[in-house]
Amino acid sequence: MQISELARRAGIPVATVKYYLREGLVPPGELTGATRARYGEEHLARLRLVRALLGPGRLSVATARAVLAAVDDPGTSVHEALGAAHRALPGVGVDGAPDLDEARAHLRRWGWRVAADSPALLALAGALDALRTAGSPPPDGLLDRYAAAAGRLGEQDVADIPAGSLVEAVRFVVVNTVLLEPVLLALRRLAQEDASRRRFPDGRPSGAEGR
Amino acid sequence: MQISELARRAGIPVATVKYYLREGLVPPGELTGATRARYGEEHLARLRLVRALLGPGRLSVATARAVLAAVDDPGTSVHEALGAAHRALPGVGVDGAPDLDEARAHLRRWGWRVAADSPALLALAGALDALRTAGSPPPDGLLDRYAAAAGRLGEQDVADIPAGSLVEAVRFVVVNTVLLEPVLLALRRLAQEDASRRRFPDGRPSGAEGR
Repeated sequence: MQISELARRAGIPVATVKYYLREGLVPPGELTGATRARYGEEHLARLRLVRALLGPGRLSVATARAVLAAVDDPGTSVHEALGAAHRALPGVGVDGAPDLDEARAHLRRWGWRVAADSPALLALAGALDALRTAGSPPPDGLLDRYAAAAGRLGEQDVADIPAGSLVEAVRFVVVNTVLLEPVLLALRRLAQEDASRRRFPDGRPSGAEGR
Repeated sequence: MQISELARRAGIPVATVKYYLREGLVPPGELTGATRARYGEEHLARLRLVRALLGPGRLSVATARAVLAAVDDPGTSVHEALGAAHRALPGVGVDGAPDLDEARAHLRRWGWRVAADSPALLALAGALDALRTAGSPPPDGLLDRYAAAAGRLGEQDVADIPAGSLVEAVRFVVVNTVLLEPVLLALRRLAQEDASRRRFPDGRPSGAEGR
């Protein structure tokens, strides 16, 4: 198909498609003339992935390029590519160098083994530091509860990874990491809202007696 | 205590404390002279909360002010304040106006009741749109699995809210919403990494036979 049809089917302006091509986010089409190129279904799929990463995924162009490099690299295993994707993806903000010992101790307790430089380990340590800084260390049992929930989800997420094609597996990991995180956070807030409505059914301020 | 001791105990430069005071993020101390004020433990607690919101919580000063207004407003119930906090907190990015029908149908199926304009509902609908846009609608059963996990967490999160003081309850909600989300995301990524190591134990590329 020509670039105009590619843009139309992806629901993106032609100028944006050209921008993605210039930035190397979408591979060039097959040249059919001095200024014309032909594009295939793989370009359309890539265009949709790019749009998802830059839009709802909120990646910068540079980060999207790094993530797509992990998707495209045929020399990595799925496990390595998952690590690369996690590294390239926007992480939890960590200020300074948090103490990793507490986070590591929790992981040992849960029997989880991860890379010593895992970005998620740093993120967990940073988040635990932040809770302490805020004067709100997690209540007893909370971390174990969160780990149990995350463990069940992570286990099934990985079981769902398609085994056939490596590129498809990595694409799946990237999309599911970037795009299911907002789903999980939204669901937790909705569950909180529903539970709060049930626990605090009276909409009135607690100090407003009578009436 | 004087501002120098307040800053020292909070681990923040005096200039930063003065900036927070000017911005109204921390209430003024009790004046004890033309240029001197005295601060109490409540100022220290507030300073730590502000630092957590602006630092690891990644809020802007304007957003932090809105969240703190929800914390300080004695005229709202816990349930209303939770809604206000969710509204002020950085949400999941939503582009355009996603179709809410599918998200609403899921919530009905799970028996969750939330406000018609709940920001988390919009976030869920936006995230589902994004998955479809990326050409990766969630596999069968995935949403139910995520909802079950989120439901258990949200239920217990709300049960943990201290019932005594309204301000303390809202502070708890804000801190736990902003600061436990990165914990949950980090734990899910760690669980994925651990599960991926077990499912794909061979570090070699899938195409690299022999050796």
